[in-house]
Amino acid sequence: MDEPEGCVFCAIVAGEAEASVVHEDDRVVAFMDLGAVTPGHVLVVPRLHAVGLEDLDEDTGAHVWRIGHRVGRALRRSGLRCEGVNVFLADGEAAFQEIFHFHLHVFPRFDGDSFRISADWATRARHLLDEEAQAVRRGLAGL
Amino acid sequence: MDEPEGCVFCAIVAGEAEASVVHEDDRVVAFMDLGAVTPGHVLVVPRLHAVGLEDLDEDTGAHVWRIGHRVGRALRRSGLRCEGVNVFLADGEAAFQEIFHFHLHVFPRFDGDSFRISADWATRARHLLDEEAQAVRRGLAGL
Ligand SMILES: [Zn+2]
Ligand SMILES: [Zn+2]
Repeated sequence: MDEPEGCVFCAIVAGEAEASVVHEDDRVVAFMDLGAVTPGHVLVVPRLHAVGLEDLDEDTGAHVWRIGHRVGRALRRSGLRCEGVNVFLADGEAAFQEIFHFHLHVFPRFDGDSFRISADWATRARHLLDEEAQAVRRGLAGL
Repeated sequence: MDEPEGCVFCAIVAGEAEASVVHEDDRVVAFMDLGAVTPGHVLVVPRLHAVGLEDLDEDTGAHVWRIGHRVGRALRRSGLRCEGVNVFLADGEAAFQEIFHFHLHVFPRFDGDSFRISADWATRARHLLDEEAQAVRRGLAGL
């Protein structure tokens, strides 16, 4: 996809916007998130503009993940407070995506930090899980 | 690592515990999460027991991600309610990991679902971001 006008991550990739970069190679750039959950919060983005899982090619996605994997391990060696790591992707507005250039969040966690998740978790009955598995398998077969 | 006694995901991988499987290959198994955030919540796990990013080999991790990528796209084609997708990894107890066999969460999102995240997000000053980036680069160099 061509670089859409006004995409802040395309501007960072192009060196036209300020960023505190931790890694760059021919396919991805990783830099500090301005609005950090915790100090050390990194975003890994593909150089080529893609919005989400649908238009990101699989090889580039796997490379974004690899760099995220290394950043996660690096956080534990960084001297920053890091007792655990979350990796998070928001794909689509309904999933809390706010910047529509694919980005993998990698951030340190520690006892007493402010990050929380909540949901109406409930143990689902096996027959429902089996039906849902069948639906996902149909979806996989349709790719 | 050898299969630790009592690991529920090792039991699923070995076919010794019930699971609603959506994909399996020589390296990973993907199945429905019993305690779903939303219907369609899938976990992708490596066959070989690893706890987290530190002991998971990078190639296996990239393959887990690839399958998660496909599952995310499949959810949008599954007929299950899916207007967005989150992918989430909890690495370590401080990061909300509860089962200590690596697992990537992939779950559908839709308007009005119950999943929420919260944190004391604040825009960080550039000199802090630059210091943190330096710390992460040191961590990467130490891998
Ligand atoms: Zn962009
Ligand atoms: Zn296990």
